Amino acid sequence: MSDEQAQAPHAHRAGGRAAKRAARTARAATSMPYITRRIGCYEVLDEEGLATIERNADTILAEIGIDYREDPEALALWKAAGADIDGERVRCPPGMCRSIVMASAPREFIQHARNPARSVPIGGTHTVFAPSYGSPFVRSLDDGRRYATIEDFRNFVKLAYVAPSLHHSGGTICEPVDLPVNKRHFDMVYSHMKYSDKPFMGSVTHPERAQDSVEMAKILFGDGYVDPATGKPKTVIINLINANSPMTYDATMLGAAKVYARANQATIITPFILAGAMSPVTVAGTAAQTLAEALSGMAFVQLVNPGAPVVLGSFASSISMQSGAPTFGTPEPALVLFVMAALARRLNVPFRSGGALCGSKIADAQAAYESANTLLPTCLGGVNFVLHTAGWLEGGLSMGYEKFVMDADQAGMMHTLLAGVDLSENGQAMDALREVGPGKHFLGCAHTQANFETAFYRSPLADNNSVEQWEAEGSKDMIVRANALWKKQLASYEAPPLDPAVDEALVDYMNRRKASFADSKY
Amino acid sequence: MSDEQAQAPHAHRAGGRAAKRAARTARAATSMPYITRRIGCYEVLDEEGLATIERNADTILAEIGIDYREDPEALALWKAAGADIDGERVRCPPGMCRSIVMASAPREFIQHARNPARSVPIGGTHTVFAPSYGSPFVRSLDDGRRYATIEDFRNFVKLAYVAPSLHHSGGTICEPVDLPVNKRHFDMVYSHMKYSDKPFMGSVTHPERAQDSVEMAKILFGDGYVDPATGKPKTVIINLINANSPMTYDATMLGAAKVYARANQATIITPFILAGAMSPVTVAGTAAQTLAEALSGMAFVQLVNPGAPVVLGSFASSISMQSGAPTFGTPEPALVLFVMAALARRLNVPFRSGGALCGSKIADAQAAYESANTLLPTCLGGVNFVLHTAGWLEGGLSMGYEKFVMDADQAGMMHTLLAGVDLSENGQAMDALREVGPGKHFLGCAHTQANFETAFYRSPLADNNSVEQWEAEGSKDMIVRANALWKKQLASYEAPPLDPAVDEALVDYMNRRKASFADSKY
Repeated sequence: MSDEQAQAPHAHRAGGRAAKRAARTARAATSMPYITRRIGCYEVLDEEGLATIERNADTILAEIGIDYREDPEALALWKAAGADIDGERVRCPPGMCRSIVMASAPREFIQHARNPARSVPIGGTHTVFAPSYGSPFVRSLDDGRRYATIEDFRNFVKLAYVAPSLHHSGGTICEPVDLPVNKRHFDMVYSHMKYSDKPFMGSVTHPERAQDSVEMAKILFGDGYVDPATGKPKTVIINLINANSPMTYDATMLGAAKVYARANQATIITPFILAGAMSPVTVAGTAAQTLAEALSGMAFVQLVNPGAPVVLGSFASSISMQSGAPTFGTPEPALVLFVMAALARRLNVPFRSGGALCGSKIADAQAAYESANTLLPTCLGGVNFVLHTAGWLEGGLSMGYEKFVMDADQAGMMHTLLAGVDLSENGQAMDALREVGPGKHFLGCAHTQANFETAFYRSPLADNNSVEQWEAEGSKDMIVRANALWKKQLASYEAPPLDPAVDEALVDYMNRRKASFADSKY
Repeated sequence: MSDEQAQAPHAHRAGGRAAKRAARTARAATSMPYITRRIGCYEVLDEEGLATIERNADTILAEIGIDYREDPEALALWKAAGADIDGERVRCPPGMCRSIVMASAPREFIQHARNPARSVPIGGTHTVFAPSYGSPFVRSLDDGRRYATIEDFRNFVKLAYVAPSLHHSGGTICEPVDLPVNKRHFDMVYSHMKYSDKPFMGSVTHPERAQDSVEMAKILFGDGYVDPATGKPKTVIINLINANSPMTYDATMLGAAKVYARANQATIITPFILAGAMSPVTVAGTAAQTLAEALSGMAFVQLVNPGAPVVLGSFASSISMQSGAPTFGTPEPALVLFVMAALARRLNVPFRSGGALCGSKIADAQAAYESANTLLPTCLGGVNFVLHTAGWLEGGLSMGYEKFVMDADQAGMMHTLLAGVDLSENGQAMDALREVGPGKHFLGCAHTQANFETAFYRSPLADNNSVEQWEAEGSKDMIVRANALWKKQLASYEAPPLDPAVDEALVDYMNRRKASFADSKY
């Protein structure tokens, strides 16, 4: 009898094969490499409403146009495809971008991990959770807020690796500002490769850094990099390409997108929008602009390399109209998310949005309300790739240690929610109802005994004890419990095995490249 | 120019009629007497799945049966209706309860408030938010946790009255344990009548107390109590009748239900279930049992008085299988809620469930995650009457002052969410997109200026300032800001006018009744 059983006062020796099978299922469920949803996607607009947004996106692409800045090659590609080019402005006739995307962009693709059991399908009915991305600061209960370092970066890679609810190692989990700007991508990509065997993201801050990410992936995957069936590289990196909203792509992002597209690596084309500043103050206006920008970017990737995996991204929040500050977890972005998810499904492309976003500086109730108000729509709306699932604080400026494990717990709950309702005979539980009957309790009945280990999601952080017990244990706020949890997880972390020869080759590549050019702050 | 405009650095003098109209709309929206949803209800089961649950509920009603304890009149009513009576056990052939309910229970009804502008429709596409119900304790940042008093009760009535997002004054907001158990209902009902003009709930802890609630309502509504069109009393009280799950109704609840049904007052028939203890550990089993119990209770009300308003209630949470403690805000109850909401729609009766439930002792991140994970499914699932919208802590044992205003803020956001996407020309905002174009910002454009006052939900509690400003203001956690807000709201509270003659008659009724029997602890 395990400790866990010993703690269950009512559900005594569950015993029997059924209980053991249930326990095995529970353990398997907590280490699922990704989610396949068994409940539908929530929609807020009908066919006519969605068609209106699509028509408006087409109008934006045809009449207003998208700027492709400082990239003559991009303009040439667009011109060859039949777009109207006016300086750096690209205008496409209605339907053109959609046709290009639908002709060659895959509906769903696999991002391979170095551990094949961790590979993830992106698109369809699947959901993949990845950590937050891009914070220059970290925050912990011990140190408060400070600049992030490569040690923090490694810590978060390790925490994501041990989190059963996170399927992906992410990308720039935080900015290691203690390393030179033009060389930190080596250490970030290497950390993902070394300290985790989950899939990860590459660098997008310069085309050369994107190329370094590809070269390191080639070393990591070795003979497995090229798919023998197609002769093409397997998709082993996914990358975040942001539009410079409104209606602009810049040379840096275009350059990185081209590198990845040509290597058959995946790009998430994301208009990053704070509505009211980078888009109109309305949901319908923001959605039309997001669709126009994403369609243009995805079509561009298909022009570069038809068939290269692309994901339609939407990052839309709003700003406080009093102060101009960005806000998160408010209702309007949830509506944008529901609309964009439906539009992505109509385009037959995977969709990225949401996460556990918040404006709060600390992991307090504000952070939790806002994060839940983002993550739940993310899951009900049908997002396929969820960046920012764990750790996000302060509008993305800060990555929180406590927030990370708190959000990961929430992501665990989403596995149960998305699994839907078990309508098997065991799920219907009519035997239990017949056995117990009116006025009795179900705690000791055979059905409860057979299912108690897997019955309900178990949070490692929620405190459901009596107030007396909670007080006796120090009246701890959730953030205090989270502080203990991430430290425990880091202390017990064990790295996944990595072939020493591969490790050496990766280090060798980094060292040679780092030595070949001077440090820089840009 | 108002202070608010002065604080908006980018959206200068909005000016013009459009801006003024928008401002008026915003003010109107914040004092809506109820919500009419403009987005669909989320469903997790298809037709076949829902039919399976309905079939299982019928099996429970026909084969297992429901106990009606210590109420011979109830058994006689059931016998006359054709049920099989075995001791106190009532068994109904498949479909019988459903037929009784569908034959006479109203699909939607109005609960009248003494201020007609506050009357609420219950059912259909409407959502009504009411405060939490039933806590013996209160908690505030100042005093910690202590037993509730009638002063706390009045405070929460006042806070609910001033909250634009709460449409209803609720019932036993907290237990005034400083008053005798058998007389506190007078002061509770009177407080709702005196300190608020929103609709409210009556006492259910004894049939006589239910009758007192009805008598006081007759005094309050005076000539308006009887509807001249029908000659029947208007529905002016709604009341919470809990099943004693599993599959049992007790004489107290049945007695109160009969009083209210005969007076044409509304009853919410709610199986109160902690799954794993009072129902099977599965979602489908809990839903079937909930439906069976609710069907039986609603049919009973229709047998007492055909056409009396009833609401299908579902309160389902789960327990920790380790400790037996109740848990809240977990994924399984959200699934039960989605299923039960769909089943209520198929029965054509209003639905009550959800709220802002949590297991946390304090208004920390745990409380907020759990509350949001309950309130958002409540709203997306299509709940009509939402008890426990604001204040709930510690599994309902404690009512929180800070939690109350935090939850009320969240309920405000739900108004925006449920309003859905504005697809008017202004909502589509194509003029804004044309005016601004690539690479510019929308802060000063005409569309933003015309809409900025109403553009986004404004939280009175969220802090979206920079970390520097937040630190300069004292690094306040949301709970600290909430503490200041409820105190400010109580300090500026002004009672709605009440005819002094009516007030006097109410006090006189209470005093006479209180003097007519001894205090008691039961």
